[in-house]
Amino acid sequence: MHISEQERDAVYKTIFSRRDVRSDFINKSIPEDVLKRILTAAHHAPSVGFMQPWDFIVINDKVTKQKIKHGFEQANSVSKKMFTDDQQQAYQKLKLEGILEAPIGICVTCDRERNGPVVLGKTIKAEMDLYSAVCAVQNLWLAARAENLGVGWVSIIEDDILRNALNIPAEIEIIAYLCIGYVTHFKDKPELESAGWLPRRSVDKAIHYNKWTPKVK
Amino acid sequence: MHISEQERDAVYKTIFSRRDVRSDFINKSIPEDVLKRILTAAHHAPSVGFMQPWDFIVINDKVTKQKIKHGFEQANSVSKKMFTDDQQQAYQKLKLEGILEAPIGICVTCDRERNGPVVLGKTIKAEMDLYSAVCAVQNLWLAARAENLGVGWVSIIEDDILRNALNIPAEIEIIAYLCIGYVTHFKDKPELESAGWLPRRSVDKAIHYNKWTPKVK
Repeated sequence: MHISEQERDAVYKTIFSRRDVRSDFINKSIPEDVLKRILTAAHHAPSVGFMQPWDFIVINDKVTKQKIKHGFEQANSVSKKMFTDDQQQAYQKLKLEGILEAPIGICVTCDRERNGPVVLGKTIKAEMDLYSAVCAVQNLWLAARAENLGVGWVSIIEDDILRNALNIPAEIEIIAYLCIGYVTHFKDKPELESAGWLPRRSVDKAIHYNKWTPKVK
Repeated sequence: MHISEQERDAVYKTIFSRRDVRSDFINKSIPEDVLKRILTAAHHAPSVGFMQPWDFIVINDKVTKQKIKHGFEQANSVSKKMFTDDQQQAYQKLKLEGILEAPIGICVTCDRERNGPVVLGKTIKAEMDLYSAVCAVQNLWLAARAENLGVGWVSIIEDDILRNALNIPAEIEIIAYLCIGYVTHFKDKPELESAGWLPRRSVDKAIHYNKWTPKVK
């Protein structure tokens, strides 16, 4: 199946305009067919040994979201104190999640024991199943962007909070909690870049040929 | 920035026709501008705290590829023996990499210490930097598909083989070794699905609402 130049450019447009959305969600529900499309796109991520280790818990229940928001607040309070005084000033100005504002949350998990103890392609690199589930997150993120839906990954939360709030069994690994919804707009640049938290690294510094070469970070 | 329905469909076409390519590479070099575009797409993946922890080592040197191929063969020989007798029969019929046939390899790494010891968003979930680098792999994979380039992830290889072959420092984590090149065609389905290794799981079994619900795997 051939991808045309026009189609290619649509993919690049989607990749380059994808953002980690925290503050621009609007109160508009996501149609079921749209939700199903982005979850199906996630489900068609690559997976080691075709094990498809992911599951997707869709959260729209307010009480559940409140528990998750509370867990974020606790973790964020702990996290803030890890930074220097100057950094803390900047940190507390940042909005780092949209748990309550986004109409839905999606928790992406990884069943590391799916399809038995020996998985093709995971025999040497045990973390491949986790990485497969992350590929599903990125597929979902880009599919959502293509549907003009914003996605924000909330990583400042203890797994146990999500595990308890969502009844996730002990043997299932938690990969991501994503906030998803329509947005007022997509920002031109990543928020942390605009806020001066860190600059965009030059892509040329990230590219090496045949050997690792030390580069200025 | 709005994504039209036509553009959205191009994204889905790319996501659903992406394959893990092992056997269909052709001997055609990848133009530099195309390579730069897919690496730039990878570089625009989401990253925790905007740390952009990835680097990309582009490999076209034959001697280096031979070392990596040899490492795969060793690891594959060890791996094969982990399966039951019946599985081994099926396993050895599978072609699991295209290291020598693909014109280039790309090793994706993660510098876990980039931008200092405390990284925004990684304070609670330490593996977020690794997951960011995996998001870069998936961006690269989809951008490559949009350029009609096949990508195959070789996970049956010891990190130390890649580390030695590519001079990667001890503190840099190895995420993926990818084989990239033009292909005769993209298969309709994942090879492991067609080969009967595992079936495609129903997406409905992967979707839960508000709570984890035990499902048939």
